Amino acid sequence: MSSEDEKRTAAVASVGLVENGMTVGLGTGSTVAYLLPALAARGLDIRCVATSPRTATAAGELGLRIVDFSEVDRFDIAIDGADQIAPDGWLIKGGGAAHTREKVVANAADRFVVIADASKPVDALHGSVPVELLAYGLSATLRELAHVVLRDVPRSPDGGVIGDYHGDLSDPAALAARLSAAPGLVDHGLFPPSMVNDVLIARGSDVEHRVLT
Amino acid sequence: MSSEDEKRTAAVASVGLVENGMTVGLGTGSTVAYLLPALAARGLDIRCVATSPRTATAAGELGLRIVDFSEVDRFDIAIDGADQIAPDGWLIKGGGAAHTREKVVANAADRFVVIADASKPVDALHGSVPVELLAYGLSATLRELAHVVLRDVPRSPDGGVIGDYHGDLSDPAALAARLSAAPGLVDHGLFPPSMVNDVLIARGSDVEHRVLT
Repeated sequence: MSSEDEKRTAAVASVGLVENGMTVGLGTGSTVAYLLPALAARGLDIRCVATSPRTATAAGELGLRIVDFSEVDRFDIAIDGADQIAPDGWLIKGGGAAHTREKVVANAADRFVVIADASKPVDALHGSVPVELLAYGLSATLRELAHVVLRDVPRSPDGGVIGDYHGDLSDPAALAARLSAAPGLVDHGLFPPSMVNDVLIARGSDVEHRVLT
Repeated sequence: MSSEDEKRTAAVASVGLVENGMTVGLGTGSTVAYLLPALAARGLDIRCVATSPRTATAAGELGLRIVDFSEVDRFDIAIDGADQIAPDGWLIKGGGAAHTREKVVANAADRFVVIADASKPVDALHGSVPVELLAYGLSATLRELAHVVLRDVPRSPDGGVIGDYHGDLSDPAALAARLSAAPGLVDHGLFPPSMVNDVLIARGSDVEHRVLT
């Protein structure tokens, strides 16, 4: 079974957690692309907030009711993909450059559900962590942080500049604290286990359901 | 001697630290309003970066050479005021709503100098801490943070919404870490002692010079 099929399988499993009347946060990315039609197909009376213009457009075309985040101060559930999932529940997100908005939504959700194919669980986080930086003082921020490579992509919807931090990822909690405290950094793609409630990982046609406490 | 006279006295003392050829970060606020003419009067060949449109305009009218922050990745010196100065060097800044940019500049300075009248040193930080929040998800961020009252002021130049956090300030390091990690918060007005090199406090016509290590 391909990773695309697994993305669809995890997405379909997650929509079973959504109920009539819920306020739902919708993530961004290639796995969420399978979530949106699966959720729309359930025909529930729900209202949704999107974490990116891309998701808002796709969800709207499928008939999902998208409301502005200003009308909502919490979510019953939010569902999103992840780029890497560590055994202890730390995530790297933001391959799609939407991690700042995704983190606001995840943090505001009573239940944050991560959906993924079998390539996403890793023994240890590695590679790089997406970052969003203020345009003001960008050269100084890059100099202070070091190890950040900017992406050749448009600014975020909030005006930030997108890059990737390529330093040591062996201690996610310490790195998250250091990046969060860095002046000029809007947000980074490290999501702590405390923000995650459920992880649904498709392996072939099976779905592993990890519940974090 | 009035606090306005003390602000001018501290500002005048600080410009003695600026030398020809330096790149200088200029803060924002009522004490910086005295810094700008004092610095201009020295007639040095320096280039300056401003932390707010207000400071940029005032400095430009005085003949100071203002360059865009994109041309600079560090400062020889940055000079700014503070709203409160704790005995251990923790600062509260941002009464003027410019704390996000002020922190980027302070952090990028080899030497960050705080200038203040005698009302600014306090036994313990109290009152509230300025915060800048993303407009996206603002209701959810306010609900999560609690204790934040929004100000009736325009957005920051970076698009953020300005408010003040009125919670417990007894442990500035813990609060700074918590606020920094909060999704939807761009930056807060707590500046750690590690960011501060010199504090010049005018008491009457005397200037106390505290050097932080």
